[in-house]
Amino acid sequence: MSESATRLPIESADPAEDSRLFRRCLGLYGTGIAIITMENAGQRAAVTVNSFASVSLDPPLVLWSISHASRSYPLFKAGGPFAVNILASTQMGVSRHFSSKIEDKFADADWSPGQHGSPLLHGCLAHFECETYAQVEGGDHTVLIGLVRRASRFEGEPLLFAQGQYSVAYAHPEVSAAPEVSGPKPEMPSQAGIIPQIFEAHHLLSAVFDEHRHAEGLDIPVARVIACVYDIPGLKAEQVARVTYLGQRDTEDALATLAERGMLVSGTAGELTLTEAGKRLREAIQTRWRNFQRDQMAGIPEADLRTTQKTLSKLISQNRAPN
Amino acid sequence: MSESATRLPIESADPAEDSRLFRRCLGLYGTGIAIITMENAGQRAAVTVNSFASVSLDPPLVLWSISHASRSYPLFKAGGPFAVNILASTQMGVSRHFSSKIEDKFADADWSPGQHGSPLLHGCLAHFECETYAQVEGGDHTVLIGLVRRASRFEGEPLLFAQGQYSVAYAHPEVSAAPEVSGPKPEMPSQAGIIPQIFEAHHLLSAVFDEHRHAEGLDIPVARVIACVYDIPGLKAEQVARVTYLGQRDTEDALATLAERGMLVSGTAGELTLTEAGKRLREAIQTRWRNFQRDQMAGIPEADLRTTQKTLSKLISQNRAPN
Repeated sequence: MSESATRLPIESADPAEDSRLFRRCLGLYGTGIAIITMENAGQRAAVTVNSFASVSLDPPLVLWSISHASRSYPLFKAGGPFAVNILASTQMGVSRHFSSKIEDKFADADWSPGQHGSPLLHGCLAHFECETYAQVEGGDHTVLIGLVRRASRFEGEPLLFAQGQYSVAYAHPEVSAAPEVSGPKPEMPSQAGIIPQIFEAHHLLSAVFDEHRHAEGLDIPVARVIACVYDIPGLKAEQVARVTYLGQRDTEDALATLAERGMLVSGTAGELTLTEAGKRLREAIQTRWRNFQRDQMAGIPEADLRTTQKTLSKLISQNRAPN
Repeated sequence: MSESATRLPIESADPAEDSRLFRRCLGLYGTGIAIITMENAGQRAAVTVNSFASVSLDPPLVLWSISHASRSYPLFKAGGPFAVNILASTQMGVSRHFSSKIEDKFADADWSPGQHGSPLLHGCLAHFECETYAQVEGGDHTVLIGLVRRASRFEGEPLLFAQGQYSVAYAHPEVSAAPEVSGPKPEMPSQAGIIPQIFEAHHLLSAVFDEHRHAEGLDIPVARVIACVYDIPGLKAEQVARVTYLGQRDTEDALATLAERGMLVSGTAGELTLTEAGKRLREAIQTRWRNFQRDQMAGIPEADLRTTQKTLSKLISQNRAPN
């Protein structure tokens, strides 16, 4: 039996008895983000989901699920046309806008009516304009299967949701950074590798710091929530998702986890405060990050660090989009 | 009407009439990768999918879809228990192994039987052990809805599939690199930002080079296929997915696209060759990449480039896992 056989789960249970554990497990499957839109007799609805999936090529079918608790559920349940808007990496703000509690989300959004009657959001990576093909009851949700009447794609990269946070995807580091351009190397040896080196260094440093976070017993949402509560006095539970850029459910789960561990308390006006144990954990993470940076830089001469920083600053400033 | 209103699609059609376009659009929704396993009376089956999605918390339900053309379809159709194995970023090889045509995929894999009778692959991020709850016909696929009896999670980061290639996720660059550690800055000013700078530089350089690829009219799979055919004389169509690390369907679509554009021909023994137009395109991409690197480095003194490269080399070598 191989070494990996001995790897034990962090946690394991019947999800009927622990739905937060179930959500944490589900969150490990990375997804894109889709906003489903519809319009019927002047009533418009939009739901942000990460349950989108392809089903069939012939006929062309896709699916997604809507909670029975969603206030848009009756509108989609009626079974008319809808559109799936796949978000681009530039649309984190759009995702946050459509996940908020604003009454008329379309008023402040860029969109236009599609050929099949559903609103199409501008700036997306892809649109699927659908008719409702089937509805399937699935516990507290309904699975909507759509027959795609029109599919469109645009330039851009996908917005992702992985481990509870908005993310972007890069080619897997074991697939070389840009294999389609593996030809002759540039003439000047010093130019040969800086860009691929930056890609590889990013990947390795991320992975090593993730191990530190795990060592502290924290997943990303818990680490981010504890930092915000520490930094922002008087922060209330309903404001946390907005300031952490986490999903609503991941935020609620992280708050509940911290409260259960005795690290977080809620005041009479709903303001959140860390307990002494919570503050100690927050400070332990800060110390870990400082030590991580210090250890990484140890043994590199001070002058080299300054030069590297200058080079990176130049690369960043010349590629940053003008505001 | 905003500026984004004028953005035109790269392509748009009825997917019933262009299933390759439909697949290209579907590929823009990033996903994790799951291997679904089952065992019944000594017969084991495994299917690699990116159609996994969550459905319901109460009862705990998940779903995925299986093609009627899959040779494992009859085994899953029988309706017994199955397990969903969510792959970690370290498991690209496992994904490739289980997507291959090897007869007994379990023989060379690390796995053990789960509590509910299905094989559980070692090294995964999460396992969902399920009973079949419902099967729904969806065109050329069947949607399998599973009632989750046991959910487990492990340390690690997710393996993703985005824009046709294996990927890893990083926090969105507009969410700061490590917001949970936004506390006091390190003491030495030169250390303050190198790691966050590397993260930001990677993101910006990737995005800018992606624009170059788009400008050449290429998506990632087409760019990668053309590079491999150029570099490997005698390469055959059925070998391309393996050497490019692309998905099987993305590879087939890219080959068909290149053939249609008159850039690729297939010899009598099935060996692929680029036409003159194909070679010119490949060389145009190489030139773009060289010019991109040269332009990025322009104006940075040669000595600074050498120092930066030395610093990055040190950061890479001290974080690379020992072989």
